[in-house]
Amino acid sequence: MPDTAAVPLKAFALTCSLKSSPAESSAELLAQQVLDALAEHDVTGELLRAVDYNIAPGVETDMGEGDDWPQLRQKMLEADIFIIATPTWVGQMSSIANRIAERLDAELSEKDDEGRLLTYGKVAAVAVVGNEDGAHKICADLYQILNDVGFTLAAGAGTYWNGQAMGSVDYKDLDETPEAVATTTKTLAANAAHLARQLKAAKYPA
Amino acid sequence: MPDTAAVPLKAFALTCSLKSSPAESSAELLAQQVLDALAEHDVTGELLRAVDYNIAPGVETDMGEGDDWPQLRQKMLEADIFIIATPTWVGQMSSIANRIAERLDAELSEKDDEGRLLTYGKVAAVAVVGNEDGAHKICADLYQILNDVGFTLAAGAGTYWNGQAMGSVDYKDLDETPEAVATTTKTLAANAAHLARQLKAAKYPA
Amino acid sequence: MPDTAAVPLKAFALTCSLKSSPAESSAELLAQQVLDALAEHDVTGELLRAVDYNIAPGVETDMGEGDDWPQLRQKMLEADIFIIATPTWVGQMSSIANRIAERLDAELSEKDDEGRLLTYGKVAAVAVVGNEDGAHKICADLYQILNDVGFTLAAGAGTYWNGQAMGSVDYKDLDETPEAVATTTKTLAANAAHLARQLKAAKYPA
Amino acid sequence: MPDTAAVPLKAFALTCSLKSSPAESSAELLAQQVLDALAEHDVTGELLRAVDYNIAPGVETDMGEGDDWPQLRQKMLEADIFIIATPTWVGQMSSIANRIAERLDAELSEKDDEGRLLTYGKVAAVAVVGNEDGAHKICADLYQILNDVGFTLAAGAGTYWNGQAMGSVDYKDLDETPEAVATTTKTLAANAAHLARQLKAAKYPA
Repeated sequence: MPDTAAVPLKAFALTCSLKSSPAESSAELLAQQVLDALAEHDVTGELLRAVDYNIAPGVETDMGEGDDWPQLRQKMLEADIFIIATPTWVGQMSSIANRIAERLDAELSEKDDEGRLLTYGKVAAVAVVGNEDGAHKICADLYQILNDVGFTLAAGAGTYWNGQAMGSVDYKDLDETPEAVATTTKTLAANAAHLARQLKAAKYPA
Repeated sequence: MPDTAAVPLKAFALTCSLKSSPAESSAELLAQQVLDALAEHDVTGELLRAVDYNIAPGVETDMGEGDDWPQLRQKMLEADIFIIATPTWVGQMSSIANRIAERLDAELSEKDDEGRLLTYGKVAAVAVVGNEDGAHKICADLYQILNDVGFTLAAGAGTYWNGQAMGSVDYKDLDETPEAVATTTKTLAANAAHLARQLKAAKYPA
Repeated sequence: MPDTAAVPLKAFALTCSLKSSPAESSAELLAQQVLDALAEHDVTGELLRAVDYNIAPGVETDMGEGDDWPQLRQKMLEADIFIIATPTWVGQMSSIANRIAERLDAELSEKDDEGRLLTYGKVAAVAVVGNEDGAHKICADLYQILNDVGFTLAAGAGTYWNGQAMGSVDYKDLDETPEAVATTTKTLAANAAHLARQLKAAKYPA
Repeated sequence: MPDTAAVPLKAFALTCSLKSSPAESSAELLAQQVLDALAEHDVTGELLRAVDYNIAPGVETDMGEGDDWPQLRQKMLEADIFIIATPTWVGQMSSIANRIAERLDAELSEKDDEGRLLTYGKVAAVAVVGNEDGAHKICADLYQILNDVGFTLAAGAGTYWNGQAMGSVDYKDLDETPEAVATTTKTLAANAAHLARQLKAAKYPA
């Protein structure tokens, strides 16, 4: 039996804030916390902000000149764990997150030599922030999208923070991370790392 | 021109709490606040708790013996404004609200002499409470259902309260109604009453 | 009593296809059919494809240099009826439609002299196409967004076409418009025009 | 290394049709096809129709006298794979499926000696049918609910069939199972069985 606990893993996270770097972003803060929690499980992580790149509209893996998705996609394919972190606007994931979801549609046509999707065996996770409600709905939408295109979801695949109804406080402006959020993030990381190791050791049947 | 402002209207609200009367219910509290706000616009209201009735599963207007939906439906048909108030569980409307939505499917086959749905000209509104997020999503689901079966939605057709992420405070246990919620409820009532009067005076074309 | 039937109205439709003009678009076809149906009710329409414009990410009415949203927004504000037409990708509205939804968030801060949102009194409608399922969900999401930011939804505010599960036929490639779709589009137009006229004649209370 | 391929597994499926047995049910047909596909992977299955039982409203594991959920829950806890099969009404899962979702909320408080949820290590899957669109949305809602309460989702955790927009054909009335549906069901079964075996052999960390 391979000692899967010892296998190092890679995580790749895309923050889907509407603001370009280096503007502060609540979604980025939570994404970084997910990566920090994963680091405790021997997972090395990379975090990029999607809006800093030109992700062309379309449903091909590469939309041609000027499209930055191929380089982001490459990082996703090299990772064992893929994380989408998004703010909440009008109750929805950001249009940046939606754009990425759209680009993932192309994965349904990309298979390895044995007929498996290239995303098979990868674990996905979701981080949602918002000063108003929306996290459960956005997790639902992203779980469906990510699962449809081949990702696996470990128990507790989402972490999130929402303020009170009609509020205006942002996650990045909280005095400290609420304990319930920290615990949820920690559990997400432990479960995602565990499951990614299992799937790396024993692939889905072709 | 009929002085529509003077036309008295009727509202009927169904609270979709999981607990039978007289247990306290946050959804009922918000539903009552909607009716109170409507009263200021010459709208008389009735509020019932759906779980106190036996609403049979099915998609006919009357599922036969023991089905209480026909009497609730009658009140809905006599009202100008129909309100569904629901708590939030696992991010969704309650199964009681879902059951009512299901029964509304039958309205698609019920028409008046001129071929209009019986719900045409009626305005619907939604009230959602939860100690965690979910209101925008539940409004979305209910708006679609209510609109599909013939109800009209005035601007700002929903009022709601959600606590902070992973919280446990209930709406009924707040020291006072948050001002933003009170204002939202007030606007909902003003707009719903206004629109219901317009539609009563000038029906949709047959 | 103003003869509201004689008041000419304006409609503005944005198609949210991922493909720039002049590529064929199923969403555009359905949007055009909505405008054609509205024309029978004395509504003049304009149809633009959103992806042909640079709609910047953000939640202000104007994101500054290079942002084309202000000119599209101006057309929306001049119209009585606003239509969003979107294709379905991975079960969701397109990222272009999501981007527009996001920009609408700014309307919550824009009011007239009497304190009404600028969207008050305007009627919104939705058109969804997809070779797989998704229309009811996308209508739900868009109804919530549009209603939250001040639009009114007439009975039957959405028209749509979806192919059979796991299918690949596009709306634009059907031999003819299915009768049920044509009827739904016709009803949408009749109800939207009727309601927009009522709201133009009798505004929501300030 | 345990030869996980040889470990027999159990699946438990609940059909959430609105009609009591023995009425024909499209959801039941698809649920049975999922169990048949699982049988090829050494998974023995049991299929019950939820509406044949009295599942009380509430969010406790046992709502007391007359509540049949405890016996259904026991079967769920004894199974390695849990399947919810639901029809689509007004674009939503059935109220019966929603009721089950609600009852699952209680699992968040039920832990083993090491602090793990009792659902940890179990794999969930979803089957959706409808003569109109809705499957992606219902999968989204159910994935979120099931994942929130501790279930793991293998790649391709849902199988479904929807007819064309505004259609009326039922899955049970198709001449034969569409090949794309059969393939999706087969993949769901292969992946769910594989993942359930991995999780049985190597539990999530406590």
